[in-house]
Amino acid sequence: MLTIDGLQYSNWSREIFEQMREGGLDAVHATLVYHETTRETLSRLGEWNRRFEAWPDLIMPVHVPQDIAVAQASGRVGIILGAQNCSPIEDDIDMVEVMRDLGLMIMQLTYNNQSLLACGCYEAEDSGITRFGRQVIREMNRVGMVIDMSHSAERSTLETIEISERPVIISHANPESFHPAKRNKSDKVLKAIAESDGLLGFSAYPFHLRNGSDCTLTEYCEMIARTADLMGIEHLGIGTDLCQNQPVSILEWMRNGRWSKDMDYGEGSASNADWPRPLSWLRDSRDFPNLIAGLRKVGMSEDEVAGVMGMNWVALLERAATRQETAPA
Amino acid sequence: MLTIDGLQYSNWSREIFEQMREGGLDAVHATLVYHETTRETLSRLGEWNRRFEAWPDLIMPVHVPQDIAVAQASGRVGIILGAQNCSPIEDDIDMVEVMRDLGLMIMQLTYNNQSLLACGCYEAEDSGITRFGRQVIREMNRVGMVIDMSHSAERSTLETIEISERPVIISHANPESFHPAKRNKSDKVLKAIAESDGLLGFSAYPFHLRNGSDCTLTEYCEMIARTADLMGIEHLGIGTDLCQNQPVSILEWMRNGRWSKDMDYGEGSASNADWPRPLSWLRDSRDFPNLIAGLRKVGMSEDEVAGVMGMNWVALLERAATRQETAPA
Repeated sequence: MLTIDGLQYSNWSREIFEQMREGGLDAVHATLVYHETTRETLSRLGEWNRRFEAWPDLIMPVHVPQDIAVAQASGRVGIILGAQNCSPIEDDIDMVEVMRDLGLMIMQLTYNNQSLLACGCYEAEDSGITRFGRQVIREMNRVGMVIDMSHSAERSTLETIEISERPVIISHANPESFHPAKRNKSDKVLKAIAESDGLLGFSAYPFHLRNGSDCTLTEYCEMIARTADLMGIEHLGIGTDLCQNQPVSILEWMRNGRWSKDMDYGEGSASNADWPRPLSWLRDSRDFPNLIAGLRKVGMSEDEVAGVMGMNWVALLERAATRQETAPA
Repeated sequence: MLTIDGLQYSNWSREIFEQMREGGLDAVHATLVYHETTRETLSRLGEWNRRFEAWPDLIMPVHVPQDIAVAQASGRVGIILGAQNCSPIEDDIDMVEVMRDLGLMIMQLTYNNQSLLACGCYEAEDSGITRFGRQVIREMNRVGMVIDMSHSAERSTLETIEISERPVIISHANPESFHPAKRNKSDKVLKAIAESDGLLGFSAYPFHLRNGSDCTLTEYCEMIARTADLMGIEHLGIGTDLCQNQPVSILEWMRNGRWSKDMDYGEGSASNADWPRPLSWLRDSRDFPNLIAGLRKVGMSEDEVAGVMGMNWVALLERAATRQETAPA
C-alpha cells in the first residue's frame, strides 16, 4: 500500500531512513527549516544533497508529484521538502520560485508567531493576510509550492483559502473537536480546507491528542473516521509530526528561533519542557502498519484506507504542487 | 545555422533579446554575476526568472544541453547562465550543487584576482590551485558545472586541467600570439585546453584584439583559422564578450567589485576608463551573420563554420555540463 507521512522532522540518518522502509513508507514530507534565512536554507539543502549522494539506494528527492511513483517503484523513500515557516523567502517575492526550483514543495506561511505574510496560532490578535502575503500566495500558486497553514491562526487561514486559487493544506494538526489545543483546527477551518480541495494530515504528536501520550490507536482512528464525515475522506491523510532522535536543543530552536530571549515552551511548559513521551503504537516509522490495521478496524474500506495512508497525499500534490506553465507564444 | 555566443553581459531587455533573434542566435552564455555573494546570486536568478516569465516567446533557460535544441526548435534564445567568479559558492562546497540545481551551468574559478580556488590573470604571483579549489573542481565535475578559466592565470589553468576529469574551457579570450594581453592565452594553455577536450571561445572585446577596435573581420577570422591548426577546429567556438547598453558603473563593478578602494581600470587606464569603441562588424547581436560570412571567406568548409558558430559549443556542453549520475543500488 503506497504510504506517505505528511510531516516528520527527525535527526536524519541512515537508520531513520531504514526504519521508514521497514514501515513501508514510500514518501515523507520532511521539514527542511524552521527559522533559517535564505542563505541558511541553502545549507540545509546542501545537507540533504549530501544524504541523497550518500544513500541513493534508500532515498531520493521528490521534485514533482510523479517522483513519488518513481520512489515506490525503486523501493526508496521519496523526500518531499517543506518549510515550517516563510523564513526561506525573507522579504523577497523572487525567492518563492528560487526555492521551488530547489525542490521546496511545501511552505507554511507562519510558525506560531506573526510573520511577514500572516498570523500564527499563538498570537493574541490575528489581523489576517498582509500585503506581501497576498502576493506570496499568488506566487506560490503559480510555481506550485503548496500552502500549509498548520501553525497559522484561524482568520489568516480562512483568508488564505479565499485568496488562493489552489488547494490549501494543514499538513499536521487535528480537529479541535477531538482535542482543544491552539494548534488544532476548528470545524470551520477544516470545512474550508476541504472546500479548497485541500488536505488535513492527522498529527500523532501527543500535544495534539486527547489524553496526550496515552491516546489509543482506536481513538486516533475514530477521530479520522469522524473527520471524514466533516471533510470528505479524499481530503484526509497522515502527518505524524514524528521527531526522532532530536535533542531538546532542537525543540528549543523550533520554539524560540532567534526571536525570544525568554524561554518559550510552546505546547509544553516549564515543568514539562522536554519532548513528549512517544505513543506506544507509533514509536517510530516502523509502526506505520499499525495505522493501516487501525483504520481497517474502525470500518474503513480498503480504498478509504489506501486514500488516507497515501493516495490522497499524491492526489493533493498533483493538484497543488505542479507548476502553472505559461505556453510560449 | 545553429548559433551560440559563448559570452555576453548586457543590460538585458526585450530589445537585446530581439536583436539576438535577428542575428540568428539560438543560445547565449549570459553572465549572471561577477562578485555577488550566494544570497545576491539568488536575487540575480530572481531577475532572470522574471525575464523568463515576462518573455516566454523569446527566451528560455538552458538547464541541460538538450534545452538548446528545444530553444532552436521553438525559435527562442536559450540562456546558459554562468558566473565570472566563484563568489556564488562563497566558502561552501555544498553551494556548487545548489547553484547547478538552479541552472548555473558554467563558473569561472577566478576573476582577475586570487580567489579561494585559484589565481587570476592580474596577480603578480600564481601559486596554483588551493586546497578548496581541488575539491570544488571535483564537485563541479560531479554535478556537471563547466569550469571556465577565462580570467585565470597560467599555472592555475594548467593545474585545473590536470586535476579536472572533464573538459575545461576558456569561454572568452584569444591567443596571446595574436595579441599580447594579460587576458589572452599562451599556446601552452590553449593546447592543454584542447587536450582536455575543452573549448576556446574567441573574444571580440577590443582589448583582446590586435589593433583594438580597428581589428578587421578578416584578421579575426584568420586568427580563428590559425588557432584551428593549434587546437583542432572542434575545440573552437565564439565568445564575443558583448556588453550592450551597460553604463560605466557596471564596468567599474566588474573591475573593482568590493575589493578595491582605489579605482582599478582593468584592461583600460585612467585616460581610457570607458567601454571600448565597438567593432564596426559586430555592433550587436544582429551582426552575427558577419561572422559566418567571415569564416567562409577565410576558407572554412560549411561543417567547420557550423562547428565554430555553435555545434562545438553544444558538443562541449554535452561532454562537460551533464550530471555524473550515481545509479541506485
